[in-house]
Parts: sequence; structure tokens; C-alpha cells
Amino acid sequence: MARNRSPRTRRITQSDSVVVIGLGRFGRALALELVDEHTEVLGIDEDPELVQQLSGTLTHVVRADSTKEDVLRQLAVHEFNRAVVAIGTDLEASILTASLLVSFGIQDVWAKAISEAHGRILTQIGVHHVVYPEHDMGQRVAHLVRGRMLDYIEFEDDFAMVKTTPPTDIIGRRLADSAVRTRYGLTVVAIKRPGEGFTYATPETVVRADDTIIVAGRTRETEHFSELQ
Amino acid sequence: MARNRSPRTRRITQSDSVVVIGLGRFGRALALELVDEHTEVLGIDEDPELVQQLSGTLTHVVRADSTKEDVLRQLAVHEFNRAVVAIGTDLEASILTASLLVSFGIQDVWAKAISEAHGRILTQIGVHHVVYPEHDMGQRVAHLVRGRMLDYIEFEDDFAMVKTTPPTDIIGRRLADSAVRTRYGLTVVAIKRPGEGFTYATPETVVRADDTIIVAGRTRETEHFSELQ
Amino acid sequence: MARNRSPRTRRITQSDSVVVIGLGRFGRALALELVDEHTEVLGIDEDPELVQQLSGTLTHVVRADSTKEDVLRQLAVHEFNRAVVAIGTDLEASILTASLLVSFGIQDVWAKAISEAHGRILTQIGVHHVVYPEHDMGQRVAHLVRGRMLDYIEFEDDFAMVKTTPPTDIIGRRLADSAVRTRYGLTVVAIKRPGEGFTYATPETVVRADDTIIVAGRTRETEHFSELQ
Amino acid sequence: MARNRSPRTRRITQSDSVVVIGLGRFGRALALELVDEHTEVLGIDEDPELVQQLSGTLTHVVRADSTKEDVLRQLAVHEFNRAVVAIGTDLEASILTASLLVSFGIQDVWAKAISEAHGRILTQIGVHHVVYPEHDMGQRVAHLVRGRMLDYIEFEDDFAMVKTTPPTDIIGRRLADSAVRTRYGLTVVAIKRPGEGFTYATPETVVRADDTIIVAGRTRETEHFSELQ
Amino acid sequence: MARNRSPRTRRITQSDSVVVIGLGRFGRALALELVDEHTEVLGIDEDPELVQQLSGTLTHVVRADSTKEDVLRQLAVHEFNRAVVAIGTDLEASILTASLLVSFGIQDVWAKAISEAHGRILTQIGVHHVVYPEHDMGQRVAHLVRGRMLDYIEFEDDFAMVKTTPPTDIIGRRLADSAVRTRYGLTVVAIKRPGEGFTYATPETVVRADDTIIVAGRTRETEHFSELQ
Amino acid sequence: MARNRSPRTRRITQSDSVVVIGLGRFGRALALELVDEHTEVLGIDEDPELVQQLSGTLTHVVRADSTKEDVLRQLAVHEFNRAVVAIGTDLEASILTASLLVSFGIQDVWAKAISEAHGRILTQIGVHHVVYPEHDMGQRVAHLVRGRMLDYIEFEDDFAMVKTTPPTDIIGRRLADSAVRTRYGLTVVAIKRPGEGFTYATPETVVRADDTIIVAGRTRETEHFSELQ
Amino acid sequence: MARNRSPRTRRITQSDSVVVIGLGRFGRALALELVDEHTEVLGIDEDPELVQQLSGTLTHVVRADSTKEDVLRQLAVHEFNRAVVAIGTDLEASILTASLLVSFGIQDVWAKAISEAHGRILTQIGVHHVVYPEHDMGQRVAHLVRGRMLDYIEFEDDFAMVKTTPPTDIIGRRLADSAVRTRYGLTVVAIKRPGEGFTYATPETVVRADDTIIVAGRTRETEHFSELQ
Amino acid sequence: MARNRSPRTRRITQSDSVVVIGLGRFGRALALELVDEHTEVLGIDEDPELVQQLSGTLTHVVRADSTKEDVLRQLAVHEFNRAVVAIGTDLEASILTASLLVSFGIQDVWAKAISEAHGRILTQIGVHHVVYPEHDMGQRVAHLVRGRMLDYIEFEDDFAMVKTTPPTDIIGRRLADSAVRTRYGLTVVAIKRPGEGFTYATPETVVRADDTIIVAGRTRETEHFSELQ
Repeated sequence: MARNRSPRTRRITQSDSVVVIGLGRFGRALALELVDEHTEVLGIDEDPELVQQLSGTLTHVVRADSTKEDVLRQLAVHEFNRAVVAIGTDLEASILTASLLVSFGIQDVWAKAISEAHGRILTQIGVHHVVYPEHDMGQRVAHLVRGRMLDYIEFEDDFAMVKTTPPTDIIGRRLADSAVRTRYGLTVVAIKRPGEGFTYATPETVVRADDTIIVAGRTRETEHFSELQ
Repeated sequence: MARNRSPRTRRITQSDSVVVIGLGRFGRALALELVDEHTEVLGIDEDPELVQQLSGTLTHVVRADSTKEDVLRQLAVHEFNRAVVAIGTDLEASILTASLLVSFGIQDVWAKAISEAHGRILTQIGVHHVVYPEHDMGQRVAHLVRGRMLDYIEFEDDFAMVKTTPPTDIIGRRLADSAVRTRYGLTVVAIKRPGEGFTYATPETVVRADDTIIVAGRTRETEHFSELQ
Repeated sequence: MARNRSPRTRRITQSDSVVVIGLGRFGRALALELVDEHTEVLGIDEDPELVQQLSGTLTHVVRADSTKEDVLRQLAVHEFNRAVVAIGTDLEASILTASLLVSFGIQDVWAKAISEAHGRILTQIGVHHVVYPEHDMGQRVAHLVRGRMLDYIEFEDDFAMVKTTPPTDIIGRRLADSAVRTRYGLTVVAIKRPGEGFTYATPETVVRADDTIIVAGRTRETEHFSELQ
Repeated sequence: MARNRSPRTRRITQSDSVVVIGLGRFGRALALELVDEHTEVLGIDEDPELVQQLSGTLTHVVRADSTKEDVLRQLAVHEFNRAVVAIGTDLEASILTASLLVSFGIQDVWAKAISEAHGRILTQIGVHHVVYPEHDMGQRVAHLVRGRMLDYIEFEDDFAMVKTTPPTDIIGRRLADSAVRTRYGLTVVAIKRPGEGFTYATPETVVRADDTIIVAGRTRETEHFSELQ
Repeated sequence: MARNRSPRTRRITQSDSVVVIGLGRFGRALALELVDEHTEVLGIDEDPELVQQLSGTLTHVVRADSTKEDVLRQLAVHEFNRAVVAIGTDLEASILTASLLVSFGIQDVWAKAISEAHGRILTQIGVHHVVYPEHDMGQRVAHLVRGRMLDYIEFEDDFAMVKTTPPTDIIGRRLADSAVRTRYGLTVVAIKRPGEGFTYATPETVVRADDTIIVAGRTRETEHFSELQ
Repeated sequence: MARNRSPRTRRITQSDSVVVIGLGRFGRALALELVDEHTEVLGIDEDPELVQQLSGTLTHVVRADSTKEDVLRQLAVHEFNRAVVAIGTDLEASILTASLLVSFGIQDVWAKAISEAHGRILTQIGVHHVVYPEHDMGQRVAHLVRGRMLDYIEFEDDFAMVKTTPPTDIIGRRLADSAVRTRYGLTVVAIKRPGEGFTYATPETVVRADDTIIVAGRTRETEHFSELQ
Repeated sequence: MARNRSPRTRRITQSDSVVVIGLGRFGRALALELVDEHTEVLGIDEDPELVQQLSGTLTHVVRADSTKEDVLRQLAVHEFNRAVVAIGTDLEASILTASLLVSFGIQDVWAKAISEAHGRILTQIGVHHVVYPEHDMGQRVAHLVRGRMLDYIEFEDDFAMVKTTPPTDIIGRRLADSAVRTRYGLTVVAIKRPGEGFTYATPETVVRADDTIIVAGRTRETEHFSELQ
Repeated sequence: MARNRSPRTRRITQSDSVVVIGLGRFGRALALELVDEHTEVLGIDEDPELVQQLSGTLTHVVRADSTKEDVLRQLAVHEFNRAVVAIGTDLEASILTASLLVSFGIQDVWAKAISEAHGRILTQIGVHHVVYPEHDMGQRVAHLVRGRMLDYIEFEDDFAMVKTTPPTDIIGRRLADSAVRTRYGLTVVAIKRPGEGFTYATPETVVRADDTIIVAGRTRETEHFSELQ
């Protein structure tokens, strides 16, 4: 069986590709997005059902136990430059797998953490990027639950982008005239007419009542702005 | 005990507050972010340990079984205008709880879904906003794994913001002169000097080699731009 | 295997047939009764033993996981007009299955509920008829336990039919003469001689001591009547 | 504790009351229906939550292990004349309990069976009435699923009552004139106007298009009649 | 498979043979003893390992689920005259199996009970002989633990046989002279010389110090006698 | 608590008493039989329910973990002369306990074995008497199942006692005349008239048709005799 | 409770003491040996029974969950200079605990590994000394199983000490005369007379047949020497 | 399969070989060390994965249940002279296996014990050598944790060998001159230069600061010596 699989797996140019270990909701969405962007992906999971669902969709997808060094080597995982440990809830499997990837000397190892302690251990063993999906999405949704924003993202401490509907006092005017930057400390970055896509806002853009806009600025100001009517 | 707790719970003005049911990683991050923004939160979970950890941090936090109608009524949950079902992995508890919130006629019910099927059922029973953290973060991280982006967010189909380092050919020039919009179909929205926060980019802004920038534009163009050197 | 099964399944004219999902005691009795009445039935269950027991008895019977959309579509379940979710005790499977049937736009979806909350969710997701066997039989048996009735059925609030033995004062007389309707507020609907079947009671019918009768009327009156000696 | 409970329990006149063992959906519905009809009920279950829910509703309700002879005797169960074993799914507990009730010489022992084998054993150990709720409701619902009936009950082999909407050809006529008995082999027993209750049908009754009627007759004829348009 | 097995099974003349269901320690010892005495035995157990161990030793031994009527009929169990339910610890399986054997009308049904309640149910469902090995052996061993007896058996209330060493005062004398019956209320039934088997004791028998004897009599007297030195 | 219990336990004169560890069916029957014979018993079990049931019946009964040396010493078990390990199914606990009793130097250690391997280990660690209840009772019942015997006991290889009904040809005659010993190689040991107890058979005894007799002799001959009619 | 315990815990001079986490066989032996050598020990385990057994023996012993940072800080674990993670079989707890100790900056962290992978992770997270008891003892015992050695220890690759009985040709002679070093490449380090302790061997020592000796040298030579007779 | 395996197994000369039962960490290290020393090993374990890992490495390795006598005999285990029971955590399997090996009369049976009670039972059933890896390594590591020793081994009560760095006052001198034996009660046994192996220390040896030395002597003195600076 290894004989049949290995040649296929080898055809991936490992240096340009990504190995994604764990094909639950996070790993699957990540892997599919990569494939959509024409990046080759080797997906690995222990669950035969998940593997079958994705076969034909990912470049390669293999059922294997990623906590065993010989298994990973047989799949040439040590030759990849980028690897993602997307193992969901099994702390032990996540750490064992990440430990092997680090010991292989892979250049970029990403891993999903499910708790602070998990994240600390991943960092201690040398994982380069630790991601906390549940935590980050919880924070992001908090802004949507509270107010009238349609979407929200914080790029760094205290600098956020907000998708919202325009308040009354900027409607029907050129952005240059509505003085958003002066009065609210924000920039209108983009604007979307109903039925169209987003385009860049320019000083000449006139905002209408049924538009959707994206504004950028300090977190507090974006919050405040989105609550205006 | 109910006698002691009820009066305290009642002191929340339910119409301005949010009830968060499920205080795992997603619910906890969401609840804490709300409290940071001065929104009152009633947190509910079955796990006494989680409840104790958050007592003193959230406005109110109660150990209770959210799948029982009388329990939720005793906590005045039916008087809230906004509720979030952040129950993690117990599909049945998530659906039972959401079903009760909808039957209470709460105005804005949010719920976290862990699969497509879960999301479909939540929608069918009348939940207003369904959130998929694992899936959405998977997609977002895919962009970071692939390239040289530092952060990525897609606001709508085909309109994204990307945090990245500037390519060589825009360094040392005024943005007005580097013609980013013409050449790459993108706008530089914000810029960050080492050791400072983000500020709005203006046509006069001169980008330096060690700056971090945020650019906005169509998904494919932002991807391409972030891969320039 | 799908190739062999599908053609057979297709031979059912789905519009006239019933799909019964869950072949426990309730589903099996229901499916067999339908077959007795010459209605074609597609039975589905996850338990191979139940499936084997009924193969040859139901029109078609298949072992399948009814919580998966692709599985149901492969069995052409979405082309049926009538479906019964008779899943016994697994709340989650019952809801997932019912959710799919509703999303298929099936005209008549029936489902068995095992609790009030279960019933509420089934209704919220759009199930057309919810049945509570344990609860309904509990109520019905209560009447038999209490008194001298042989059978009891309540058609609507406050209108019941009771099978009982005749009280002394109507024995040996024509029904027209015994004034059951006047004195007891009831009608004698049918009568059964020992060793024979039921026939309609007419005003000329003379009730004997060893007859069994069915009377119709308000719940309270039927109760009272059955306690007469 | 026994001292406090026993006197209260004793105050039930056991000869007129019913002991219901097992307070799941079947037992609870049965017990509540009995209480509605002013019969005193001693409810017994092992689950403290079920017991608490019903305390104050049933005459007496006790948490106890009904498989122990001394426990039942302490509760004076052996002095009752009527007992119902409504234990749901624990075959062993059902049989052990029924065995004790029979050995006490209780006059009328009812028990719910969950399978044919269970029913056979209950009969062999001497239970007087065995009830199969799932099976019976399955059969009854089959008739509703198939056709246009609104309700259906079979009192004995081949004699059923059906609630249905009237076919066109009896609408607008006195029952005496529509010859239902001659043409269909059925009797119209009762009739319900929209917004009213059922009343007895008489030969003078004129059926309207929006009435609901109950007809009695042989099973096959009732089925056929309900399918007329 | 059934085709191959059935003819073999049929070759047993069921009327003279015994079916033993449950081949644990009790059932196995029983079945092997029967085979030693040239009685044909059909052994049935669910455990393939037990079945394999005994194949070749019992006349027939089959792995089957004895709680299913069709399974037992296929093995022609209903044609046997004698059956033993030797199922060890699974109360439910024991009762289900015994219930079927009784319903087959088998002439002599034996069953092992593991508790009083179990025994009562077996009796109620019509089992003819109920055996309590643990209980009976416990009683028997009690006599050995206490005193100087070598073996003990009570045939009926208050009549026992005891194997013991002879007390000093009967050694060296003819039994006729030692007046055991008069002085101790006992009969010496049998005697065993070292290295030989037991033989009947006669009045002429002279008991030696190293003999073993069996005495019969009232329980209390045998106890007392065995404690003499 | 230890303070209260210890003095009571000490009041047992350990040298004359028996400690019974494990109060399941075997241990309980054994302990109760000892108490009936006025032997003091210290009963030990881990199950509080079993302990409570026997408290007041055994001399002392304690809930304790018999696999711990300090626990046994605190109960003064090491001072007893006779101990029975009646632990039912937990091989490990049985061996650990027996190992401790042997290491205490107790004079007579009995233990129940549930398999040959278990028995071998008990013997290897130095237990003095190993008992196999299931096996021994299986053998004994085999004789009853086969034939017309009412009871059977084998004292030693090839010497048994059988309770049976008398064959026709010895009825109505003095035993001296019926030559049972000559013709059948057996001795009639005892005889029981209906409604009376057993008494010794003498040469003068006349056997009646409705008597029950006990005969002693070689196994094969007793078997043969019991099958005579 | 924390108030009472903390002061006691503080009285340990953490810099001179050792914290031992996990009090199974390895941790307990280690902790007791330290106490014997007058080193203060803080023992931590989750199992209350283990904690109780050692209370009074170790300087301090506490039941606590060592995977929680706040728990360890409350016990002042972060102020110790030396810590041993002796957690037996729970890989996750071992890693979580070790991760915290390393993050505290403790100078000397020891940990027991149960597999190679476990050891690699412990090393990656920064544990200073990793110990493999099962593996090391397995190697050591191999030498004893093979030959006539009484004990064996390898200090470094290819340098071992062996306890053995002396071969014939060195008996009765001064060590200086028996030329052990020349002929066998070994040194006799110590010698033990029956009933005495070990003392250093000197050139004058005369070896007797019943002495035990310790020899040092290359592994192969010690093996060979111990096989001489 | 047995036919293929047996001849291979037989080719081992059992009298010179070792059977190792249990191939966990302890058993595996032991078996591999034996093979390194050219001793033939038959390895037995129930875990197919462990067996596969070692196949090709040990002389023979078989997956088998060592608690069954017939299984061991089929593998000719009873013909070996030396056997090691290295079963890790399953007390029952360890004892059952050891019991069989002892009953086979194997000359040298070794077994790993995981507790004192386990060790006592192994001794009682006749195991010749009982080993406690966790306990012994715990003790040994205690000495390393405490001080400046590099390795430590105690050969017998109060006679130990220690690997350590030399204290200042013996550096740069001939051992004959530094009077280690007189001043510290110890002998320097061996010495290791950086980058070399150990060699015997002689009176002429001059110790350097970067040497590692092994000293032998009474436990307390070695401890004290290793703490000198």
C-alpha cells in the first residue's frame, strides 16, 4: 500500500506546498481555502470518513497517525516547508505531532491551540505560529452582538476596521465634505452600493442611505461611529 | 439561594445587556470583550469551575442547566433582547437552548454552529445569526500560511484587507507617487512605524522599509501584492 | 452496491409511498400496518439486525445513516411526499433527520417526540405532525386502570368513546326504551355479542348482560357510565 | 425519614388508589390523568428529579428502588388493589418490580412492555394487563399517515372509529337522506362544527363542508370512506 | 451454515438428551458430568471461546443467542425434554431464555438463580427446578470451616451426612459395641481405610484411628460428633 | 469511628471465630450458617449495602477494603485462626486478600476460586482450602437433571449418596428381605415417611410406595438404582 | 484552608528543598530517599489516598492539581530551585506540569519520561534532566538474567561494576597474586564476607569461596568474568 | 500458523535462552540488551503493534495471551530455563503468567512488581527474583537531584558507588598523596579524562579539574564527598 501511495505523495513539490494535519472544521476550511488559491495541500487525519470526504478535493489526503515519526517520514512530511497542526481537541496528539514537526526542522509550523496552557506548550516546543480560533472569533463576534456593526476586525491593539451602515449626517454628501476624519477620527475606506461589490472610497464619493461602508480607526472610535443613527 | 441570586440578576437592565450561554473558549472571549466595552453580561454555564473562574469578572455568572425552560425563566433570560448560545460541542444542548430562546421571542439570538447540519437546524428553528468560528478562522489562517501576509480579513466576497510588509518599489516614496492604486488595484489604508500604532495613510505618507501597512482591495490583488518583494 | 439497490428503490412510486426512518417498536408497527393496507414503505434504520428482520416484509428496507444528506438523496428520500421520523431515543439523530426532510420540502413530515422540548424543536424546524406515543398511551391507559372500561379513546377535548359492559338498568331493553341519551348524555354506538364482531346499535337493539358496548359522549359522562353496575 | 413519610402514605386509602411505578413519559401522563379524575396516586421512581417535578402534583410521590421487597412494603404498596409498572427501558427492573407486585397478590397489575419477549415474561409471571404503547401508537398513526383521516382508533379487530372531513356527496344533506350506512356500511356517530365541540349525529343532522365527523364501521370501510373526496 | 449444523444437531435424540444453555463454570461442569454418564448434551453459549473449548467434548456445542426464539427453534431446542439454563450473571438473558423454554412446553426446565429475586421470577414464569449454587455451597462450606469435618451434606432439614475422622472412643471396637447410635444418635454409614475406597459399615466393622467415616443423623448431632476427639 | 469499632471487634475471641471476607451470595450463606451454629463471625465487604443488610445478623460486620494490610490489622484479622476469602468475581482482590491472610500466618485459610487458574494461584500462595462452588454444584445438579434422583452427593471418587423414590420391587418388604445390598450393591441409609423427617433405615424397616429413601454406594450403582421403576 | 497551609509550606527554605510532583512508586521512593538524607520535600499529588499515606513522612504533602498555574503559585512552587515531575502515566498532565515549572524559571527541572516521544517533548519544552526508569532498569536487569552476576551497573558506555561470586582461580590467594587486572582487565573494588558489609579490596585481601566481590572494568570483561566458575 | 511458527521457535536452544513476557518499556529494553549480548530471546506480548516493532530485532517475537497454559506450552515456554515476566500494569495478567511459569518448574523466574503487595504475591507463588524498577530508580535519582553527583548506585545497604567531579583538594595530586581513603573513608575506583573512557585509578593517578571520577564507599561518605567543592 505504501508503494502505491508514496509515489503519488512525492509528486507534490513539498517546498511550495502545505501539510495540514487534522481535518476537522478548522483544518478542512484552511485546506480548502489553500486549494482554492492553487496551493497544493497534503491533508492527514486519523478519521477515515473525513479523509474520504476530502479525497478528490485536496491534492492528497491520507489516513494516518500523525503522532508516529515513521508514519510522517513515510509521507515525506519532513520535506515540507510549511505545516499546520489543526488537531482539534486531543491535546496529547496535537503536542506529539507538533513536537515531531519541530524536530524535523520544518521552517514554518502553525498550530491551533485550544487553551492558554496548550498555546504555551506549543510555543515552548518551538511552534512558530499559534492560533486560537475560538478565542479570536469570540472577541470578534462580541462587537457584532453589541451594536449595529455588520462586521468587525481588529488588526492590532487599538486599530480596527468596521463594516456598518452610514449615520444620517454623512449621507448625501461628498466624503470630503462630511469631515469624517476630523469629527470621528476615522477614515471611510470602502463603500458598497446595493447589488454591487465594494470599491475604494475617494474624497469625491457621495454616501447614500442604503450603502454599506467600511471605516478604519481606533477601536473605540469605530464602536462609537457604528452606534450613530 | 434562588432568593439571593434573583435580585442581583434583576439589577441588570436586560434590554441593554447580553446573556451568554456557554462559557468555553468562544463564549468566554466574547463575554470578556463585551464587559471590556461596558456591556453588562449574564454568563451561564453548567460547569462550576468555569463559572467560578469568571465570577467577579462578568456582571453576573450563574451555574445552570440552560436546556430547562423554568431555569432560564428564573434567571429572567426571557427579558433580554440579545442572547448568544456559545455552547461548544453538545449539539443537543445547543439546539434545546436555542429553541427556548427563540420561543421566548428574544429579538437577537446568536448561536455558534459546529457543522453545516448544526447551522441549518439553528436557522430552521429561528436563530437570527449563526457563527462558525472554526471554519472562518480556518479560511483566514489559510491566507497567512500561504504567503507573507501578517494578517488577512475578507469583509465580503472578493473584498479583503491585508496587513503586510511593503514591497521594495513603494519604499521611500510618497504614496501619491507610488501609484499603488493604479498599478496594483489597491489602496494603502493605514501604516505603522515600528514602536507606534497604526495611523491613516495619506497621499503624503512616505513608506519605509520597516513599516507595516494595511492595504484594501480585491482578494486576488491583495494576495498578489503581499507576495511582492 | 448502490447500483443494485438504487434501481429497486426507484421502483417505489414515491408520491404514493411512505418513508419510515427508525424501525424500533413504533416505526415497525407503523410500517407493517401501512404494508397491510397496501401502501409501499421504504424503511430505514442504522441497526442491521432490525433491517434484516424486516427485509421481505416491507417493500424496501435499507440500513443507512439518516442524518447524512447525501445518504438520503441516494435513497431518493427527497422525492417522497410523506415521511415519518420514528427514531426512538436519540434526540440528535431525530432532529438532524427531520431537519433534512423539511429542507427537502417533503409535503407531510411526521415525527415521534419523546419529550415536550423535543416536540417544540420538531415544530420549530417545520415538522408538520408531532406524535407523543408514551404520553398519549399513558393518558389512555389511565382510564382503563381506574375503572371498569375495556377500552377508551378521547377524540378531542371532552369527547370520548368507551368500550364497556352494560349497566344493569339498560339490560334486556330496546335502546330506544332505555333512554341512555337522556339519562346519561351518551349514545350507544355499537354492540358486540359474545363470539361475534361489533355491529351498529340501532334504537331496536336489545342489550344483553354479556354484551360489550361502545358508548360516545363527553369524557366525564362516559367515565361515570362505565362505573355503573 | 421513614417515620415522617409512612403516616402520610398511609393516609391514602389504598383500595381506591393506584400505585404508579416509573414516572417517565408514560407513567407521568398516566398518573396525571388519574389525578385529574380525582383518583389518588402514589408515584414511585428512582430519579430524584422526576420525583421533585411531580411532588405537589401527585397525591404522594416517593423516590425509591421498586425492585426491593422491603422498600415496597415500607410504602404499603402491598395494600393497594391496583398497580401500574410504567418502568421505561430497564427490562430487569420492570420484571423484578412486577414480580414483587404479583407476589403481593395485588388484584390488578398493569405493566408496560417494550417488546414481545418482555410482554411474554410479564404475562408468564402473572401480570394481568400488558400494554405496548410504542407498538399501538405506531399502528394508529399508520392510518393517519396514509390518508385523509384526522384520527383513528380500532376498538377490536375490524371495528374502527375515524375522525375525518365529510366527502362531497354527503354535504348539505340530512344524514337520513345521505344513506351513509347503506352505501358505505358505516354510521356517522358524531359531528363537530368549527369552533364547537362534538355532538351526536342524528338522522336530522345536515353535514356541512367545514364540519368534522366521526364515523364507525369495519376498518376497511372507514379507510375507504376517508379517502373519498 | 444453518444447513450444515442442523442435520448434526438433529442426530441427537432430543427426548433422551439435555440442552445446557450457558457454559460458564456451572454449566460446563454440569455438561461434562452428563457426557461422562453417557447422556447426550447440546451446549449453547454466546462466547465463541467457551464454545471452542468444549467442541469435541460435548455431543454438540453451538454459539448462539439463546434469548431469541427463532435461534432456539432452529437448534430444535423446543423438541428437548430437559433443559438447563446455566447462564451466569446476566439476569435478563437468564429470564428471557427461561421464558422461551417454558413457552416451548419443555417438560423439565432447570435454572440457576443468583439471588432470591431471580429465583422467585424463575419460579413465577414456570421454571420447574431452581438451583442456587453459591448459596448452597456457602452453607455447606460453613460446616467444614467450623470444625473437624472433612465433608458435609444436608439432605433435608435436619438430616445430614458428615465425613469425619473417628473420635477416640469408637476406635478399635466393633461398631456394634461402640453404640454410636445410642450414644450419639447417629449411624456410621461407610468407612474408608487409607489407600482404599469407601465401603459400607456393618456392625462387625472395627474402626481404626486412621480411618475416615461417614455418619448420618440429625444436623446437630453430626456437628457435635465431629467435634469429639 | 475506629475508636468505637475496634473495641467491639476485639470482644470476639478471635481463636474461636471466623472472619468471612466477601459477603456475596456464597459468603453470606456461609456466614449466616456459622452464626446459626453459634460461631462468631466477623464479616467484611466493601459494599455498604451488603454490610448494612447483615449488620445485626452477624456478630460484627464492617465495610472495609480487605486488600490493604493496615485495614485488616486494624480489624485484628491477623489474630483469627480461621478465615474465608469469599470474594466473588474480582480475581485481583481475592488474591491480594488471600496473600495478606497467608502472610499473617492464619492457621486455616479458605478461599473460593472461580477458575482453575485462580485455584492454582491460591494454592501457590499458600491458601489451605480452595473451594469451587459453581463447578461442584454443576456436577451435582448433572445427576439430578439426568434421572429420577431427588438429591445426590458424591463424597469421594466413586462413593455417593442418593435421595430417591423406592423402586417397585423393594416396596412393601422389610429391607432385610429386599436384599438391596446383594442385588444392587447399595445400602439404604435412611427413610422418610410423607410428613415426617428422615430416620435411619434398619433391617426391619418396610419401605412404602410414597417414602423417600437415601441409598449409599458406588456412583454407578446409585445412578442405576434411581432409574429403576 | 489555603491560609492554614500556606504558612506551613512557606517554612520550607525553597532554595534548599525539592518539590516532587507525582507520588506514585517512582516519586514516592525518590521523595522518601530525599527525606532520609535530610532534604526537605514538598510532595504534590492529585490522589488523596497517596497524599494521606505520606503525610507525616514528607516535610509537606499536598493534594493539588499541578497542571494549574495558580495552584502551583499558591504553593510557592515557583520559588523552589529543584523540582521533579514524577507523574506516572498521564502524558498530558506530565507535560502541562513540566511546562509550568520551566516557565517559572526553576533552575533544575527533572522529569520522568515513559516513552521516547515523551522524553523528546520534555526536552523541547526545556526540562533539564529526563529520566527513563523502566527502560534503564530493563537494561540493568538484562545482565542479571543472563548470567551469574548478583548486581550490575553501567556508569557510562563500556564501564561497568558487577557484584558477583569469585571464580575458583582467585580463591585463597592475595589479590596481588591473582593478577585479576592483568588476566581479566578488571579491578576488584570491594569484598564482602558472609554476615559483614562491603569493604575496599586491597592488594593484600585474600578472597574466599563464600565471599561476594565487586569488580570494575569494561562491560564485556565484567560479563565474561562473572561467567567463570 | 502454529505449524509455521513452532519450528522457528524450536530452533532456539531453550536452555541458553530467555523468554521475556511483556514488551513494554521495561521488557523491551531488557530484551534488546540481551540480544546485544548475543543471548537468544523469545518475546511475547498481546499487543500486535509492539510485536511488529520488535520482529526482526528479537530472535523470536510472538503475539500471544500469556495467561493461558496451552498457549505457553505451544510456544515451548515450559522448556526454557530463564523467564522474565515484564508485564507492566495488569496485576492479574502478571500473576496468572508468573503462576504458570512457576508451575512449569522453570529454574529462574524473574518478575517486575509494581507495588509491595504485588511483590509479596509474586514471592508467595514462588517467583525467584522480584524487581521494582520505579521504586529503585526513584531512590537512585533522589541522590542525583540532591547534589552534585553525576550518577549513583547502591550495591547493598550502605555501600555505594558515585560518579562525581573531583573536589579541589585532590586535584593535581597523585591519589596516593591525596589520602582519599584516610580522609574521606572512600576509594577512587576509576577516572575519566574528557573525551576518553573510564580507566582504573591507581595510586599514581593524578586527578585533574575536568576529570570525572567514580568513588566507592559507605553511602553517607559518598554523599558527603560529592558535596565538597
